[in-house]
Amino acid sequence: MQFRKINRLMLLISLFLISSIFFNQAMAQSKNQMVRLAKIKVDPLQLEKYKLALKEQMATAIRLELGVLTYYAVADKSEPSHITILEIYADTSAYQSHILTPHFKKYKDTVKDMVKSLELVDVNLIAAAKQPGN
Amino acid sequence: MQFRKINRLMLLISLFLISSIFFNQAMAQSKNQMVRLAKIKVDPLQLEKYKLALKEQMATAIRLELGVLTYYAVADKSEPSHITILEIYADTSAYQSHILTPHFKKYKDTVKDMVKSLELVDVNLIAAAKQPGN
Repeated sequence: MQFRKINRLMLLISLFLISSIFFNQAMAQSKNQMVRLAKIKVDPLQLEKYKLALKEQMATAIRLELGVLTYYAVADKSEPSHITILEIYADTSAYQSHILTPHFKKYKDTVKDMVKSLELVDVNLIAAAKQPGN
Repeated sequence: MQFRKINRLMLLISLFLISSIFFNQAMAQSKNQMVRLAKIKVDPLQLEKYKLALKEQMATAIRLELGVLTYYAVADKSEPSHITILEIYADTSAYQSHILTPHFKKYKDTVKDMVKSLELVDVNLIAAAKQPGN
């Protein structure tokens, strides 16, 4: 009985370590992924409302769309209304589906008078590397 | 015996699901994290050598330094020698330790004649959201 418990514990620890290694591995861009930087200048007076709409869009897309892989949204410290979003989609068709979803259309409609300029820069992922859980 | 096996399987599946939820959660910036965009223009003739040095630095830092949390390096499709790196450190002291490491010094020395310009932009993370394993 004692042996069984240790055995189970070993199994669980192994599984956790394997997961950690999996999540830790350095990644290059998968063949078909679509990666982009969106550079957005927001009306400073509407910045908090914009950020709420953005966060809702990001969380909903990740929850409902398996083809929306990664979002990081950052704001310049010296100019907080200048926002950069790193976006990774499984492929271009995942992106094409994404822009037709109700949550994306709601976001675009909500922010249409908050966004002063939008520049979309297509990029290739050179590499990504992360600690487990990041 | 059959019951024990099912029980163990349930445990493993639960653990996996809990890990998935953990890795999937939308994250805002932790209090002390240091987040930055490095915008680098590289000599196009030395681009491949530069990317090798960058990838080695990233992988080594993530492996050896727990305070180096996340790197994403991307290159503009229309101008592949224009590179943007999203960098997240646990805090400023993790960053200060990082720039004193042998692997970072080796990278800086290797690329000093490859980099034409370097702009470091301090940013705040508004939000990040990812599918498990991304």
